[in-house]
Amino acid sequence: MKQKIVFLKEEEIPRQWYNIAADMPTPLQPPLHPGTGKPTVPDDWAPIFPMNIVEQEFSTERWIDIPEEVLEKLLIWRPTPLVRAYALEKELGTPAKIYYKNESVSPAGSHKPNTALAQVYYNKEAGIERMTTETGAGQWGSALSFACSLFKMPLKVYMVRISFDQKPYRKILMNTWGAECVPSPSADTNFGRQVLEETPDTPGSLGIAISEAIEDAVSAKVNTKYSLGSVLNHVMLHQTIIGLETLKQLEIFGDYPDVVIGCVGGGSNFAGLTFPFIRDKIYGKEVRVVGVEPTACPTLTKGPFLYDFGDTAATTPLLTMHTLGHTFVPPPLHAGGLRYHGCAPLVSQLVMDKLIEPLSINQVDCYNAGVQFARTEGIVPAPETNHAVAAAVAEARKAKEEGVEKTIVFNLSGHGLLDLSGYEKHLNGELEEYSLPDEEIQKALTVLEPYPKPKV
Amino acid sequence: MKQKIVFLKEEEIPRQWYNIAADMPTPLQPPLHPGTGKPTVPDDWAPIFPMNIVEQEFSTERWIDIPEEVLEKLLIWRPTPLVRAYALEKELGTPAKIYYKNESVSPAGSHKPNTALAQVYYNKEAGIERMTTETGAGQWGSALSFACSLFKMPLKVYMVRISFDQKPYRKILMNTWGAECVPSPSADTNFGRQVLEETPDTPGSLGIAISEAIEDAVSAKVNTKYSLGSVLNHVMLHQTIIGLETLKQLEIFGDYPDVVIGCVGGGSNFAGLTFPFIRDKIYGKEVRVVGVEPTACPTLTKGPFLYDFGDTAATTPLLTMHTLGHTFVPPPLHAGGLRYHGCAPLVSQLVMDKLIEPLSINQVDCYNAGVQFARTEGIVPAPETNHAVAAAVAEARKAKEEGVEKTIVFNLSGHGLLDLSGYEKHLNGELEEYSLPDEEIQKALTVLEPYPKPKV
Repeated sequence: MKQKIVFLKEEEIPRQWYNIAADMPTPLQPPLHPGTGKPTVPDDWAPIFPMNIVEQEFSTERWIDIPEEVLEKLLIWRPTPLVRAYALEKELGTPAKIYYKNESVSPAGSHKPNTALAQVYYNKEAGIERMTTETGAGQWGSALSFACSLFKMPLKVYMVRISFDQKPYRKILMNTWGAECVPSPSADTNFGRQVLEETPDTPGSLGIAISEAIEDAVSAKVNTKYSLGSVLNHVMLHQTIIGLETLKQLEIFGDYPDVVIGCVGGGSNFAGLTFPFIRDKIYGKEVRVVGVEPTACPTLTKGPFLYDFGDTAATTPLLTMHTLGHTFVPPPLHAGGLRYHGCAPLVSQLVMDKLIEPLSINQVDCYNAGVQFARTEGIVPAPETNHAVAAAVAEARKAKEEGVEKTIVFNLSGHGLLDLSGYEKHLNGELEEYSLPDEEIQKALTVLEPYPKPKV
Repeated sequence: MKQKIVFLKEEEIPRQWYNIAADMPTPLQPPLHPGTGKPTVPDDWAPIFPMNIVEQEFSTERWIDIPEEVLEKLLIWRPTPLVRAYALEKELGTPAKIYYKNESVSPAGSHKPNTALAQVYYNKEAGIERMTTETGAGQWGSALSFACSLFKMPLKVYMVRISFDQKPYRKILMNTWGAECVPSPSADTNFGRQVLEETPDTPGSLGIAISEAIEDAVSAKVNTKYSLGSVLNHVMLHQTIIGLETLKQLEIFGDYPDVVIGCVGGGSNFAGLTFPFIRDKIYGKEVRVVGVEPTACPTLTKGPFLYDFGDTAATTPLLTMHTLGHTFVPPPLHAGGLRYHGCAPLVSQLVMDKLIEPLSINQVDCYNAGVQFARTEGIVPAPETNHAVAAAVAEARKAKEEGVEKTIVFNLSGHGLLDLSGYEKHLNGELEEYSLPDEEIQKALTVLEPYPKPKV
């Protein structure tokens, strides 16, 4: 029997995260203060994040030790398996070899707990007594609830109201882990009350929820900090354990990829798998790295590289990102985790440096690939993950047309067991292909005209 | 750092299942024909199951090879990890060591795919072109849909109507894997139409659903067979891979259990973990084996050992079981998988021979233990699994009281991500403790008076 799956032993789990800031050909341009427009210093971030996390955000150390206390918790499900998709290959009739890194086996069903555990640990270490965050589709809120539970850290999650109402199971899951979860806008913050007064029937938005979570953190009586599940450097860092494990596992398979693929919203699962491979590429190895996003929210493929805010209310530092503008509201999309107006500065810079190829795929093609994967390899991918599956399938088909053997690795970033309604719509033929028109992008970007521009 | 998790390598996966029939001190008494009351021969089972499965059902071979084609599919997620629950131990302040076998990492979220894959493979081998089954809570229907998908076997699932209406996500999941799923009673069978005519508003029952699935199988134009997810010998057999892996993993931990625990409905996850340990026990090793059921459906603790039917309509062969009578309708219970009137003949006989200790726990204590587990070890267990968690916690508490070190192993048979509504009720204080009164059991058992009795 040919090798199908590689598990690493406990003692083979990576002990350090990889920080790509140490190897990037073009360093990141500094985040700018939202008030002054001048480069931020660590103290500017202190009201929101504890200093140990802020230091990590600014670090250019190549290797950063994973604390023992974090490792212990990661070992509940890590190292995750790397699996060869023989049945999918056969179905496609491709000469390509397809591998997937199965991050869906975590207790929250996705890669998100990798950074959630690290962030909660650092907050605990810094003496923080309570945390807040926002969640859209619910993956991040679930993962942070899981992590806070294990470190006995109280947590309040502001969940975009429309998701809160449509996905009651996400709230129960967070409650089971002991977290509080309220629909946003809520009556619990000044900003929430203001929004409710002006638009009582609003479905809410990620921007509003972020604003509420930050207001809560900076104004709470107990020592409270905020946590973000993607976009920032320290989040990308914590996810690199995915790619570092994958490198070891590919060695056991006796293989090395021609192309590495991940789906991209804020960028964290993508960065987690690919940054260790991009390091190889920087040092001369031949490997293609593909980041896949929806055609309905084409940040990397159509958004320019500009300074923009992380949130809709324009209160965070300005970051260099491929962006559609912070007031852009992406169309409803079943891959809720990919509905972000911007993208991680690290990922955005690496796209500028042509170390990452961006690609956009419409949701119908993504669900087709997801169903094909479920019916051959057996795992029902998260709607977000379907973008990576679709790109892997496209690469495998190209390999067949060209008659070349090729090794493809993609990140199976999560399962879809808590997000099945998109599959129902797809199977009923109710999903539509949709690409965001260029004129809408141009309109959305006018909001950025007054702000400083990065050097290109 | 102390060892937290043991993964086995692909080459360490067991290549044979363990058949406890070869080692039982008291052999099973023969199944009886429902019409004649005489011992059945393999041919009596042929209309429902393919002969290769019937042969396995009657086999007394100790070790049975796992076909390569089944192994290949099991390797999508197996071998599953064995994990030490340090955080739970600490929370309980117990000197006991607690290990759990994590079967929740399968694509369907439970242990059920272990037998689903084997059964579909044998049906395919026997030239069967289509399969049917029933499902109550949805775990088995999902698992068989998953397996049928991988072997390209058409499947129709009759799902108890009340679950079908209350759990729409289960149906979407089965559809995603390509299976058809209809509410039972349905208009697709004679029996279903008859029930609908008599009681149009019936919520359905497992008994009705089994009858429909069997009628469909025996009367379909294409070569169709029926599949059962628990109770029968071949199902227990396919699940023993769980315990065989666990034995190897405990060896790596350098440990051997004082007590092994599983929850019991039909008996398959319990048998899967414990039969290899019961073998050790038969050959002189000291180990306690505890089967845990709900006080609301106390088959093993309160049901007598009798001949009974597997289904409510009394059409299957009569099997020797601890039973509450085939017409007994268990009260609504969030652990839907434990609402079966009887228990596997193999498990029932081993209880008679005092190789298994039965135990019943009420659902409030079970959910308390499940929440404690979720908040320390991070995995939200399935409602059924909470019974095993509760028994493990009780053993660990006893160890603390007695001041003895003790090694406890339990089967984390599935996660609860698709069955969260029970957690919601529990967290809201809406669940009630309930024990089935003895007089109800006596009443339910009168249905068995006309039938033959087993030798005791």
